[in-house]
Amino acid sequence: MIERDPNLKEYKQSFYLAAGECNPQAEMPLTLLMNRIIEVATNHANSWGVGYARLIQDGQGWVLSRVTIEMERYPRVDEWYSLTTWIEDYNRHFSQRNMEIADGDGNVIGYVRTIWVVINLNTRESVDISKLGYIARNVSPHPCPIEPQSRLKPFEPTRTENYRFRYADIDFNGHVNTVRYLEHLVNTFPMQWHAANFIKRMEIAFVKEAYYDSEAQILIDDTDPMNVRLDIIADEVPRAKARFCFQKR
Amino acid sequence: MIERDPNLKEYKQSFYLAAGECNPQAEMPLTLLMNRIIEVATNHANSWGVGYARLIQDGQGWVLSRVTIEMERYPRVDEWYSLTTWIEDYNRHFSQRNMEIADGDGNVIGYVRTIWVVINLNTRESVDISKLGYIARNVSPHPCPIEPQSRLKPFEPTRTENYRFRYADIDFNGHVNTVRYLEHLVNTFPMQWHAANFIKRMEIAFVKEAYYDSEAQILIDDTDPMNVRLDIIADEVPRAKARFCFQKR
Repeated sequence: MIERDPNLKEYKQSFYLAAGECNPQAEMPLTLLMNRIIEVATNHANSWGVGYARLIQDGQGWVLSRVTIEMERYPRVDEWYSLTTWIEDYNRHFSQRNMEIADGDGNVIGYVRTIWVVINLNTRESVDISKLGYIARNVSPHPCPIEPQSRLKPFEPTRTENYRFRYADIDFNGHVNTVRYLEHLVNTFPMQWHAANFIKRMEIAFVKEAYYDSEAQILIDDTDPMNVRLDIIADEVPRAKARFCFQKR
Repeated sequence: MIERDPNLKEYKQSFYLAAGECNPQAEMPLTLLMNRIIEVATNHANSWGVGYARLIQDGQGWVLSRVTIEMERYPRVDEWYSLTTWIEDYNRHFSQRNMEIADGDGNVIGYVRTIWVVINLNTRESVDISKLGYIARNVSPHPCPIEPQSRLKPFEPTRTENYRFRYADIDFNGHVNTVRYLEHLVNTFPMQWHAANFIKRMEIAFVKEAYYDSEAQILIDDTDPMNVRLDIIADEVPRAKARFCFQKR
């Protein structure tokens, strides 16, 4: 179900959470939420004619650079939920796209902040997006009351894990899929921890692409178990930096 | 986009393949196809009032027992595709649900055969589903020209892999998610193999549930590299048996 306001500044899409999609807590997994965020952002850009199909003509593509999610609660099994998205800010370097997540009755249950850049798919360098001026004229004043992403500073890990990226981790650009980073991070916590706590706030910054068959190290600082820093390193270069803030269920 | 024929015997749903969903070959991954199969089957059962929400009232649930997929080709990036589903056969032990996959122009590009049973969620035993007589009266004569699943006999592995199931592998019943089995099987082949060949036909039978933190062995017989048998074993008990028939791209 897709709804657009007449001036296209906002874009809303509704989904049903089927049993087969749920995590062991009968809720929407963080990875599925990330997929929906990308899907809705993509659909909104496509509706403006500035999506993948348009940019690929110039050898360019949108790249997700940062995501911050803060949830009061996650959608539950057999619930409808919606994502409404709009642009909060826009300049020639990046586009700041926010989202509001609501339950089937329209109650807001979470917010999302995302930062997108456009890159040249050959050089992997970011390009000036001021030519996509259409977006700049469609900035919306919709409020987004969650804090922007914090600075994800270096840290001393309290524990580490190793993981070698495999076929299913790789996207169609030949890089590790952004959602897969998140999945590997979520997997570093045991089932019992997830059963007792949920991810109230999540911050992730994608620093550099990782590749097939490269060996990654996941560094974790859980000195404060409710506020955990995580980095994914491959060939000694950080690929993603993240923070998980947990809250007791 | 959802379409139903007036007598509800068939159910059709259309999807768009976004760039972010694609595999490195810019096609629909087998795992996404499996998710769509489950989604469309669930929606059709829900439309009949015999879905999850109804069955859970009796402490019962649908369980996917076998899947056979045969594809001429997979949907490509930025393509629309549809799944049309119907019941071919139905008795008190199982429901045989087939699907036809078409591209955006309506050309059929693949078929699916699935077998579903209903189980008592406490005892895990299969229950008589003849009370769901509504389904039996809605069997459709829609043809499904692919061969039923072959007998997946025991074999001598040529190679094996180990994998310990983690949090993201587990579904809301506390078992390893069926789609995750498939993902781990797909991952046993290197990127270059997938780049040169596609999975023309896939057979999988789910034998017994596997659990969080159990160590699985994946047994593989690739004596004929184009016709590979794979079993997933945990605690010496087979959990899933599969066959991948490849075809050169």
